[in-house]
Amino acid sequence: MAEASFSVIRVGESVWATWEPEPGVYHLDWLQPVLDGAHARGISVVLGTPTYAVPPWLRAMDPELAGEEATGVRHPWGRRQEVDITHPLFRQHAEGVIRAIAAKYASHPAIIGYQVDNEPGPFLLHNQRVFDGFLGWLEGRYEDVETLNREWGLTFWSQRIRSWDELWRPDGNHSPQYQLEWRRYQAELVTEFIAWQARIVREYAGPRQFVTTCISYERPAIDDRQLVQQLDVTAGNPYYMMQDALRIGVEVPRTAKWWSSGVWALFEQGDRMFSSAQAPFLVTETNAQSIGQSHWQHHTPYPGQIALAGLALVARGARMIEYWQWQTPHYGIETYWGGVLPHSGQPGRIYREIAELGRRLRDLGPVLEGFTPDADVALLYSIDTKHSFEFYPPLADAEGGPDGMSYLRIFDRYYRAAFEAGTQSRIVHAAQFRERDTEDFVAEFPTLVVPTLYVADDGMLDALVRYAEAGGHLVVGIRTGYGDQLARARPERAPGRLAAAAGVWYDEYSSLDAPVGIDGATFGGGHAEGWADALVADGADVVAVYSSGIYAGRPAVTSREHGAGRVTYVGMLPDLALATSILRWAVPIASASEWQFDAPVTVTSGSSGDERVWFISNWSSEPATAHPPQRSGGKPIVLEPWDVTVLVEQRDPESGAVYIPEPERVEPS
Amino acid sequence: MAEASFSVIRVGESVWATWEPEPGVYHLDWLQPVLDGAHARGISVVLGTPTYAVPPWLRAMDPELAGEEATGVRHPWGRRQEVDITHPLFRQHAEGVIRAIAAKYASHPAIIGYQVDNEPGPFLLHNQRVFDGFLGWLEGRYEDVETLNREWGLTFWSQRIRSWDELWRPDGNHSPQYQLEWRRYQAELVTEFIAWQARIVREYAGPRQFVTTCISYERPAIDDRQLVQQLDVTAGNPYYMMQDALRIGVEVPRTAKWWSSGVWALFEQGDRMFSSAQAPFLVTETNAQSIGQSHWQHHTPYPGQIALAGLALVARGARMIEYWQWQTPHYGIETYWGGVLPHSGQPGRIYREIAELGRRLRDLGPVLEGFTPDADVALLYSIDTKHSFEFYPPLADAEGGPDGMSYLRIFDRYYRAAFEAGTQSRIVHAAQFRERDTEDFVAEFPTLVVPTLYVADDGMLDALVRYAEAGGHLVVGIRTGYGDQLARARPERAPGRLAAAAGVWYDEYSSLDAPVGIDGATFGGGHAEGWADALVADGADVVAVYSSGIYAGRPAVTSREHGAGRVTYVGMLPDLALATSILRWAVPIASASEWQFDAPVTVTSGSSGDERVWFISNWSSEPATAHPPQRSGGKPIVLEPWDVTVLVEQRDPESGAVYIPEPERVEPS
Amino acid sequence: MAEASFSVIRVGESVWATWEPEPGVYHLDWLQPVLDGAHARGISVVLGTPTYAVPPWLRAMDPELAGEEATGVRHPWGRRQEVDITHPLFRQHAEGVIRAIAAKYASHPAIIGYQVDNEPGPFLLHNQRVFDGFLGWLEGRYEDVETLNREWGLTFWSQRIRSWDELWRPDGNHSPQYQLEWRRYQAELVTEFIAWQARIVREYAGPRQFVTTCISYERPAIDDRQLVQQLDVTAGNPYYMMQDALRIGVEVPRTAKWWSSGVWALFEQGDRMFSSAQAPFLVTETNAQSIGQSHWQHHTPYPGQIALAGLALVARGARMIEYWQWQTPHYGIETYWGGVLPHSGQPGRIYREIAELGRRLRDLGPVLEGFTPDADVALLYSIDTKHSFEFYPPLADAEGGPDGMSYLRIFDRYYRAAFEAGTQSRIVHAAQFRERDTEDFVAEFPTLVVPTLYVADDGMLDALVRYAEAGGHLVVGIRTGYGDQLARARPERAPGRLAAAAGVWYDEYSSLDAPVGIDGATFGGGHAEGWADALVADGADVVAVYSSGIYAGRPAVTSREHGAGRVTYVGMLPDLALATSILRWAVPIASASEWQFDAPVTVTSGSSGDERVWFISNWSSEPATAHPPQRSGGKPIVLEPWDVTVLVEQRDPESGAVYIPEPERVEPS
Repeated sequence: MAEASFSVIRVGESVWATWEPEPGVYHLDWLQPVLDGAHARGISVVLGTPTYAVPPWLRAMDPELAGEEATGVRHPWGRRQEVDITHPLFRQHAEGVIRAIAAKYASHPAIIGYQVDNEPGPFLLHNQRVFDGFLGWLEGRYEDVETLNREWGLTFWSQRIRSWDELWRPDGNHSPQYQLEWRRYQAELVTEFIAWQARIVREYAGPRQFVTTCISYERPAIDDRQLVQQLDVTAGNPYYMMQDALRIGVEVPRTAKWWSSGVWALFEQGDRMFSSAQAPFLVTETNAQSIGQSHWQHHTPYPGQIALAGLALVARGARMIEYWQWQTPHYGIETYWGGVLPHSGQPGRIYREIAELGRRLRDLGPVLEGFTPDADVALLYSIDTKHSFEFYPPLADAEGGPDGMSYLRIFDRYYRAAFEAGTQSRIVHAAQFRERDTEDFVAEFPTLVVPTLYVADDGMLDALVRYAEAGGHLVVGIRTGYGDQLARARPERAPGRLAAAAGVWYDEYSSLDAPVGIDGATFGGGHAEGWADALVADGADVVAVYSSGIYAGRPAVTSREHGAGRVTYVGMLPDLALATSILRWAVPIASASEWQFDAPVTVTSGSSGDERVWFISNWSSEPATAHPPQRSGGKPIVLEPWDVTVLVEQRDPESGAVYIPEPERVEPS
Repeated sequence: MAEASFSVIRVGESVWATWEPEPGVYHLDWLQPVLDGAHARGISVVLGTPTYAVPPWLRAMDPELAGEEATGVRHPWGRRQEVDITHPLFRQHAEGVIRAIAAKYASHPAIIGYQVDNEPGPFLLHNQRVFDGFLGWLEGRYEDVETLNREWGLTFWSQRIRSWDELWRPDGNHSPQYQLEWRRYQAELVTEFIAWQARIVREYAGPRQFVTTCISYERPAIDDRQLVQQLDVTAGNPYYMMQDALRIGVEVPRTAKWWSSGVWALFEQGDRMFSSAQAPFLVTETNAQSIGQSHWQHHTPYPGQIALAGLALVARGARMIEYWQWQTPHYGIETYWGGVLPHSGQPGRIYREIAELGRRLRDLGPVLEGFTPDADVALLYSIDTKHSFEFYPPLADAEGGPDGMSYLRIFDRYYRAAFEAGTQSRIVHAAQFRERDTEDFVAEFPTLVVPTLYVADDGMLDALVRYAEAGGHLVVGIRTGYGDQLARARPERAPGRLAAAAGVWYDEYSSLDAPVGIDGATFGGGHAEGWADALVADGADVVAVYSSGIYAGRPAVTSREHGAGRVTYVGMLPDLALATSILRWAVPIASASEWQFDAPVTVTSGSSGDERVWFISNWSSEPATAHPPQRSGGKPIVLEPWDVTVLVEQRDPESGAVYIPEPERVEPS
Repeated sequence: MAEASFSVIRVGESVWATWEPEPGVYHLDWLQPVLDGAHARGISVVLGTPTYAVPPWLRAMDPELAGEEATGVRHPWGRRQEVDITHPLFRQHAEGVIRAIAAKYASHPAIIGYQVDNEPGPFLLHNQRVFDGFLGWLEGRYEDVETLNREWGLTFWSQRIRSWDELWRPDGNHSPQYQLEWRRYQAELVTEFIAWQARIVREYAGPRQFVTTCISYERPAIDDRQLVQQLDVTAGNPYYMMQDALRIGVEVPRTAKWWSSGVWALFEQGDRMFSSAQAPFLVTETNAQSIGQSHWQHHTPYPGQIALAGLALVARGARMIEYWQWQTPHYGIETYWGGVLPHSGQPGRIYREIAELGRRLRDLGPVLEGFTPDADVALLYSIDTKHSFEFYPPLADAEGGPDGMSYLRIFDRYYRAAFEAGTQSRIVHAAQFRERDTEDFVAEFPTLVVPTLYVADDGMLDALVRYAEAGGHLVVGIRTGYGDQLARARPERAPGRLAAAAGVWYDEYSSLDAPVGIDGATFGGGHAEGWADALVADGADVVAVYSSGIYAGRPAVTSREHGAGRVTYVGMLPDLALATSILRWAVPIASASEWQFDAPVTVTSGSSGDERVWFISNWSSEPATAHPPQRSGGKPIVLEPWDVTVLVEQRDPESGAVYIPEPERVEPS
């Protein structure tokens, strides 16, 4: 590890049965030589709490410790994270082992921080205790059942309740209102659990030690923004397909929710992690080679992809890159989750590539101190809308059934369009936007894209209008403004409180079973997918129309000056080319726009004090070239296949920018 | 509503918890102003019983009230129609609320009838009580277990029982005999439940008030013919995909059992509703715009499709068209089931189209009094065969698995072929055919098509032979005559008791994994799909042969004169073109055959006293023309895109027919 | 039957409720006339025990008699083989009925043997009793939990147990080690059950009566090699798709695990049955016409296919061909499992073809006495690897998920390649190979192909190396040598203990999402599929390299002389053409190589005393010709469509071989 320039490792998090082989009997010494050895080699350590893998002796104490995936359906033991995290017996023993470990090692000089639990929120809990808690939570929000009956519209289908205990279980639920609240409650349970662990650990932690957890962002029971408010730093576990899925120009389908496919999606993972706290973040796990608990999928990185992926994450705000895992294990479910070392334990190609990246990061370290990634446009993210759309999605899948991925399909369309347009993005949670001063936000982000915001109260929609009034360009996608804070359809003409500022309304809409042509006078044409609003321009300019289909000749995109700014309404889901055109039109100047480069090259940047750092990447197996801005006089950057170079830009009073390459890369080998 | 010429509404059927907020406490007054307001505007009211949506307080009384989808698997609460309709506690409270409502409002002058329950029979009930009832029902039919052992062939695989309680539950059943009886029993449960409600309501109803229920025809637990015998009039809820699925010339796959796709299938829904009682019917629900409990499918009708669909149903015997629902709701599962009014509550395009249709129907009303749709051919429908084929189908799906839709795949092939051939159809339940006088039936229907009749006792098959003897042309499809009344394979050579009259037999058959060519000397060729009998002509003429495949050169279709008529045996599933050719050949004169028109125009007719009414429809986005019979001297009918016109034909002693157009359509706008 | 030359029937095996209508009351006489009648006609009888279909009265005694498919999920009654075969109550009653039947009929002169139970091992049992037995079985193997914790690596994810009862149930298991042992235990349960029955029957059986069971080879809970060690002869139930699936040159997908598709796969079924005991076998069931418990799939054989299939099985070692079933039943789940006689009971085409085959087999009988099929190459079969790969497969399916059929996909690739190469194969279980004397084995099989052997202890791998040392050509496929006896990844460089002898190693590998080109200097090129090792030649010759993809230019196949023999390592899954080339190269002389013929003809052979018997088959609808070796002077063999002829070769001292055709086939009709 030391030879590979490792500076930090993560230990201790999945071995509760080793820490505590018998109830209350703690075996803590085994870690001592690991910590000492790390410290001796200048390697820092993140110490994990082991709570996500309960020992068999605890499982055996009470069958109700098993979390229920559905009412009465217990998660079988044999894996991990099967427990009901609200069970008092679990909490009691978890607290014991956390305190024992923290008390023992908090003062060890190698320890720089703590990871409590691991990828929390893997499934929604349906245990009786949890459901009872939900009823209490509802009572806290609604006070009496009559209010609930009214707010949820329970007259329909005779579902009015007389007392809280008459509420049906979530398994049979079909009310979008119930479903949304159930998801909010589940996310709060997980946030509370992590906060509870953080409080315990902090009783022992030194002032320079941080507390975090590692987030798998597509877990169903989390609200990452709320979650990281309990922590000192965001940490995430981005996984992604490698090989051709990281080759620009090739489309590889994403086959699991917990990994992504595509270079743009790797960047999105970075930006999502940044969004949790609007701050840099740690990468606690990422691809070394094969990922997944499987023998059948090995997208071993092509030579060079390790550095490309690692530096892309750094460019989007990562302060640390940890690989899962050091050595590929010889038994158990993760036998084929490939580590830095292979099964033979002998350093191979992957080790060498990671070591090379380690050396580069060590050398780049000083310049990346205080680094913040650039962003040309803000995209609004809504956890509530995502959770609502998972069960009541507006888009159909290929077979005409509900596309439970609708939220990401819409959001990712705009995110990727921004990427294809050469702009850099900042993802902003709806609540974060609302907390910001409008003028400041406009100054930082002249364009705000709202891909879709179905769940929003009046105040949220009014805040969007104020953003335009204050000079911003608000770009709004389908379903935005249609629902309220309980995912009820608003009784006014759509898009509700945005209609006046947007200068457009609709009362009718249609699914699009096949793409429909769009003529866009302003930014060229393309196709609409999935959904079409029957827009009526009422003060707005029509900037694109349907060229065929049910709404042929009617507006597809409108735009209207509002206050000092503008509201653009996109009344369908544009295909990627059209969305890219819209984003190019709406986001005039991009941070990398002075560079000349074409796909498969990407140019990514950020600021670090007075310096700007540039990451020039070639996501292909052919050599490629990028040209710095003319004014800099910089030479063309020649990139080998699957190559990435980092330049530090310093302002020279005479010649403008000066690009300083990485030390050992002056002469490309 | 009044401005839109609404003449009838349906109220009260899904709000039991509003009618009876506490057990035995009835709040009945809220409906009074609705009924008074309707009456004041000349709008009649169908009053519903609310039994399909049990209130939470009732659910809470006994967990066994929940119907079991499988043994021990309770239908979760949270929707509706989850109850075990045989549970005494449910019956007790249902009776209470029915009586309270009926007693309160039966005398209101707005009430013209009652709808008891709603779309009954959504799933098969597996509760212990229901299973015990099945055992008793079997005992009533078989008297002793030895008879059951013999009739079901239970020696096989050691399933002979010694007492009724040794019978296995339906969940694990694999006996086709058990399965068929189980389905019959389930249908009888539902029929009994509706009859029970009808009896209660009739204690209060006035002599001019009708009682009905609304039928969703693909519900698994109903036999519509038996069900409507308990009622005064048939009522059904036809739903269908709109947009291109109602464009002739385009094929849109059907994606759910409870809606149809295709103009022919819309007509078939009308004819199925007519078939229940061989009488006109009410449409209690149909498409206003989006249908389904979904956010992801909106096949908002193209302009004009509202009238096309509505008048097509009228042309096939509908006496009433009610739309579900008046206003799109803002919360709950049906938030996107689009009503006449959109979420904004402001009349829009759909309202205007429905209002226009309302005006037309109001004006056409007098001439449609006593209207009966024409029919050129009868098609025999077998609920027993359908239910048997749902579990033991003769056709494979695309992956080679059982095609549980086999019955409709075969039946629809012939129904649609008749439609494509320009003939109009009457669907006749097997039992209805059998009750008819043979001579009368031959006189009314010179051709009887039996697409498939697997479940039939000797008497039924003999009745088919008598139909041919009496002069009818009997056209028989695959699997007909193969099984008996318990879906047992008959021990004689197929097609069993039809073989002699048909002059053909077979002992062997083969699935067809891919279409096989047919040479049809008499009516042209085509292809066979799915199934092929190895026919041996034994007195019949061979009118088509296989041109390739396992039975190349052997008979595919035979025909033989029998008595005063003819029996044609079709030994494979013909593709649509071939089936259409066969139907053209077998049904010589069609009611609309004197008209000249081509797809996408349809010409549909019916008689109303001395008058014949013609519906000329253009199911496309291009203008189209239809030419009335030469002898009438009528002018060509020019149809706008998505246009339908109605003509009343009166016999003029001199010039023959005279066609009188709808009042406001003399000059096409 | 007698007219059709039937010489043996199977009776009595599925009618326990008939044998024992009440507990302890045996009705045994009904079979007497059947046995007497058979005997009078010279037909022998295999008598079955009826234990696989428990009577309803037994089911009713204890609900726990039902086998659990998953913990707490009882197999529903209504079919057969639902019972927990370890339940004492079942054993008690089973013993009773077995003894009653055997005592009654063992001395009947028609009885030649017994079939105990039927196709055992249909699912894995999860009952508490079975799981408790597993814990005891583990204790027997591991002695203490610390050993288990260490051997299974249970530190990972905190799964260390303190006592046996802390082990989790198999339902939630994700440990490959646990899974493999669970499968071994389940197979032992079934072996013990069959052995128990065999012991009881042998108390009654005469010395010339055999005991067997019939095996369905893809059942999950069997190890056929262990199973037949309890029996006197192997018996199997090969089923296969007919029609075009038995036409060489057409690929028909296999749609169920219990039947095969393809002529090569029919041969493989024969060779698998031979492999169980390395001896000839009985075919207790095979296709008469339609197979399966379905109405929707009828691949009725083309004329001639009955003889082709039957003689192919005889050519691979079948001593008996029994058809399932004599007459197609009229009721029950197998109503469309087509028998020798159709539903009408009247002999038809199938009867005639089977009768003709019966006559041929009767006439060939004497020459087939002592017949053993030829084999040019041995293929190693590993039940352990197959069972392990069913849950942790190395190959992905088309959607990127685990391909649970990976083992057969790899094994069948090589088996079929040998078939396409014109060689005949002997399948050898890993344990059978290990028991053999190495020198003897090399003498019998100069080439040993190991398609994949993931689960193997050190001794097994060393035995493979010794095979090469002793002069054999060892051909090794992917994953071989990677795991140990508990499916743990070995800690040495792959292919582990084979690496030195093979002169090649790898530490890295990649899935192949799409085929990758292979340049094979030695035997031509082709494509790799699914998997690629990153081979490093270390003493071996590189005989093929990747022409593109992640490992372009690197070795794909290597070969190295070792001792008196050679080890060839195939580091990817070759496509069929490439695998065929490799096999042609590796297996120099084939038994049929002196014949000249092309697909669709196959030439199959075996020895019977001094005679060699040749089966010349035409698997197509066109006539075909095969030419015997030049030295024999034999005339060309002309084959009608779907025709097979059998020749007996006798050595003539002067002219070499003389081929004697079947008696009635001297002049082809």
